[in-house]
Amino acid sequence: MKISVFRKEHFNAAHRLYNPQWSDERNDEVFGKCNNPNWHGHNYELVVKLTGIPDADTGYVYDMKKLSTLIKRHVTDKFDHRNLNLDVDEFKDLNPTAENIAITIYDLLRPNIDEAYELKVTLYETERNFVEYPA
Amino acid sequence: MKISVFRKEHFNAAHRLYNPQWSDERNDEVFGKCNNPNWHGHNYELVVKLTGIPDADTGYVYDMKKLSTLIKRHVTDKFDHRNLNLDVDEFKDLNPTAENIAITIYDLLRPNIDEAYELKVTLYETERNFVEYPA
Amino acid sequence: MKISVFRKEHFNAAHRLYNPQWSDERNDEVFGKCNNPNWHGHNYELVVKLTGIPDADTGYVYDMKKLSTLIKRHVTDKFDHRNLNLDVDEFKDLNPTAENIAITIYDLLRPNIDEAYELKVTLYETERNFVEYPA
Amino acid sequence: MKISVFRKEHFNAAHRLYNPQWSDERNDEVFGKCNNPNWHGHNYELVVKLTGIPDADTGYVYDMKKLSTLIKRHVTDKFDHRNLNLDVDEFKDLNPTAENIAITIYDLLRPNIDEAYELKVTLYETERNFVEYPA
Amino acid sequence: MKISVFRKEHFNAAHRLYNPQWSDERNDEVFGKCNNPNWHGHNYELVVKLTGIPDADTGYVYDMKKLSTLIKRHVTDKFDHRNLNLDVDEFKDLNPTAENIAITIYDLLRPNIDEAYELKVTLYETERNFVEYPA
Amino acid sequence: MKISVFRKEHFNAAHRLYNPQWSDERNDEVFGKCNNPNWHGHNYELVVKLTGIPDADTGYVYDMKKLSTLIKRHVTDKFDHRNLNLDVDEFKDLNPTAENIAITIYDLLRPNIDEAYELKVTLYETERNFVEYPA
Repeated sequence: MKISVFRKEHFNAAHRLYNPQWSDERNDEVFGKCNNPNWHGHNYELVVKLTGIPDADTGYVYDMKKLSTLIKRHVTDKFDHRNLNLDVDEFKDLNPTAENIAITIYDLLRPNIDEAYELKVTLYETERNFVEYPA
Repeated sequence: MKISVFRKEHFNAAHRLYNPQWSDERNDEVFGKCNNPNWHGHNYELVVKLTGIPDADTGYVYDMKKLSTLIKRHVTDKFDHRNLNLDVDEFKDLNPTAENIAITIYDLLRPNIDEAYELKVTLYETERNFVEYPA
Repeated sequence: MKISVFRKEHFNAAHRLYNPQWSDERNDEVFGKCNNPNWHGHNYELVVKLTGIPDADTGYVYDMKKLSTLIKRHVTDKFDHRNLNLDVDEFKDLNPTAENIAITIYDLLRPNIDEAYELKVTLYETERNFVEYPA
Repeated sequence: MKISVFRKEHFNAAHRLYNPQWSDERNDEVFGKCNNPNWHGHNYELVVKLTGIPDADTGYVYDMKKLSTLIKRHVTDKFDHRNLNLDVDEFKDLNPTAENIAITIYDLLRPNIDEAYELKVTLYETERNFVEYPA
Repeated sequence: MKISVFRKEHFNAAHRLYNPQWSDERNDEVFGKCNNPNWHGHNYELVVKLTGIPDADTGYVYDMKKLSTLIKRHVTDKFDHRNLNLDVDEFKDLNPTAENIAITIYDLLRPNIDEAYELKVTLYETERNFVEYPA
Repeated sequence: MKISVFRKEHFNAAHRLYNPQWSDERNDEVFGKCNNPNWHGHNYELVVKLTGIPDADTGYVYDMKKLSTLIKRHVTDKFDHRNLNLDVDEFKDLNPTAENIAITIYDLLRPNIDEAYELKVTLYETERNFVEYPA
């Protein structure tokens, strides 16, 4: 039977939620205080889940140090202490909602992890708001 | 691919576990100190999960403020600082175990959320005892 | 120099906040939904702190197993899965606010712990409301 | 004996750490990635502690609902979903380090709480970095 | 519809990760500081999940006290305050990675829980590294 | 007024509690399962508190990156993934109780931090057992 392994990492970032094709009124109505043009920010907690078969020689599904390094290189080095809208290419034309950040993290990690592993990303924007991709 | 969003809320309530068709001895045997006729209580933590497709214009699967308001109106306003057995109609003839509270919360929310969304409810009675519905 | 040791325990209880010498209106005004006559409840987290000198032979200020047993005997066995107002003698004429519960726990423990130890009690009613006695 | 009561609140904000009288090189050297000119952000957790004597009629040192409202009015309504440097007057000429934010919160609350109460502020910038004022 | 119930328990243990058929160099390369021949240790948090149908008379899927006792008898009494490699038969020839510990816990519990229940085990080695079996 | 800053770090280690001058019976009686001669272990959480005056130019009491590096060099690099009794010189003749570990950490850090700062160490052996030095 398969087994899943999880690694938790974190990054701190600023962002703003808005749709540039909408009026200010429409943006305020939909995104409320998240549409502050001067930005706000979060301590994001990221959990990456890989599902596969443990290796017979190591007893590991995946080396957690290797997974941590991979998340650091492809995700947290790019996102941590950044403005997601201004500093991260992926959000130049994509609203950095928790949903879109999780999908982007998945897309950044997927090509770097063997296809034999199922990949899932959970992202906590706050302790009370979080998302999981894919569902 | 679909994505899940989660919102965490809480309520504090009193309850008592017992089956009115059983003798006191049988109730004590099965429910132990949870059968205290003078009630006891918990800080319940509730996580509501919705699974769907992010909206192209907002990047949201579901507006978390809207979900929080909906949970408040249909669940926590009814349950918070109440005696579940005495004050909440749904438990007049239903033992308020964590399982039955979770099912009841699901049933209260389901008609108020578009069927396009899959709904799941996780309820923590304590940090060490919790339930998820549907499985 | 002295060192402090801490032991965390928990209990689940029902209670109601009100002053029997006041009108219902006055009680509702001051205690709000905490004055529900049908009770509500909490998962209380209790931290007991003892300050003293480590024993040269054991390296312990106080044996944590002994402290846990002592808290169980004098506090949690009396409070857990109870209605504080109805089931616990100490609150027959004392409003079971977090403040009064903490003072009561201190008074129950103090005679059972050598005076050489300074004693402090922290009580979490919820994650967001807690008290410490003595200050 | 006196007793302390604590109320935990939170706010999400963007900020940047730098000294406008220093060169960019000096700012980078001292503040590292916290000096990102495009801002970053945090989920701040705030604990406000009041120490006093419980009221004989209520059993409260201070009404937690009243304290929560007071923190909301004087602090979190001003700080939440804001850019501390740009949107909050107090940081126009003050570097918004955790230390300076905690001192500012203390100064905002102190005139609004009776002098009979001792006031202390704990601010968590992350789970691993936090400050307490006054010491 | 089925419902899942969860019980969280914990144990503290020492262990060492290595493959006795490998050279010291190979073990150091793969397992790093986890290969310390003098052992290291963890506070393991264990969550056991059972999925089934609530009983009509009790409202329980499974009695949490009974599940707690069962986990204690078959798992934590054997693992707590032990050296997993030296003191626990199951790891005499099996590397005690989080993956293998979770699979072993599953195998210890499965025969003692009615087949009508689906069983899943989540094991936290640290707050940041955890596994789930079966996936 | 002074302000305190806190930095949280962690390390995972094995240890055994016993007094070599006592009989096995006496050690078992006092230290129970913590006296397992094959060791057990913990995820230790360490909080280091420094109290001082914020620097006028930086707004920092102490640079948290510098404090983290200092804790790493003097404490966690020596303790992490080690057997405290066998691998750490300071415990060759000192029973590694939480009390003695906290005192040792204080003694390792104190010479490396300017005397102008008050230093305090909090060490969590488990979520439920922790110590603070000096009191």
